[in-house]
Amino acid sequence: MNSLLLVAHGSRRAESNAEIGRLADRLRARLADPDTLVDHAFLELADPLIPEGIERCLAQGASSVQVVPYFLARGTHVAEDIPEQVAIKQREYPDRDIRITDYLGTSQA
Amino acid sequence: MNSLLLVAHGSRRAESNAEIGRLADRLRARLADPDTLVDHAFLELADPLIPEGIERCLAQGASSVQVVPYFLARGTHVAEDIPEQVAIKQREYPDRDIRITDYLGTSQA
Repeated sequence: MNSLLLVAHGSRRAESNAEIGRLADRLRARLADPDTLVDHAFLELADPLIPEGIERCLAQGASSVQVVPYFLARGTHVAEDIPEQVAIKQREYPDRDIRITDYLGTSQA
Repeated sequence: MNSLLLVAHGSRRAESNAEIGRLADRLRARLADPDTLVDHAFLELADPLIPEGIERCLAQGASSVQVVPYFLARGTHVAEDIPEQVAIKQREYPDRDIRITDYLGTSQA
């Protein structure tokens, strides 16, 4: 099984974080692929954080985790902070395919 | 003349900020409306900041400024920080139509 982990910044506002959960729900419904698990995580300020999000995907049987940065520009978070967090789990699970996709801002839409 | 002011977070990475400038350029070309000025500004970390961005639009003759938050979720920046910055100029120019539109994250696309 594959998995997509949507990663947003995270906020002090619970409603903002819930918005990301609902987005992951919509993405899951849109994909409607029983072989692709869809979950979400946050860079900071909210749970689950990225390492825990990756763990969740793996615990549910995913052999691959594609981390999708839900960010609009390639700032420090996309260029450095997310890769650092993901690298922790890449080192811990060298036999799993854990990678980061393009961030949302690269989409023409 | 109307104006659209695209407001992004702002980054310590110059390339990330330049990305927003290019996005504003694309938006301007896409609109191709001689009666709508398109500019950009940042909430923090980069110039021009929001008040200066609004001033620029007004100085170029805009009678209205629509501030478009280029953010994906309604976190503290969208809910509080941007309105605070915009309110400074709304008080300063009560005769101009300065308002904030929905943030990007509300777009279904």
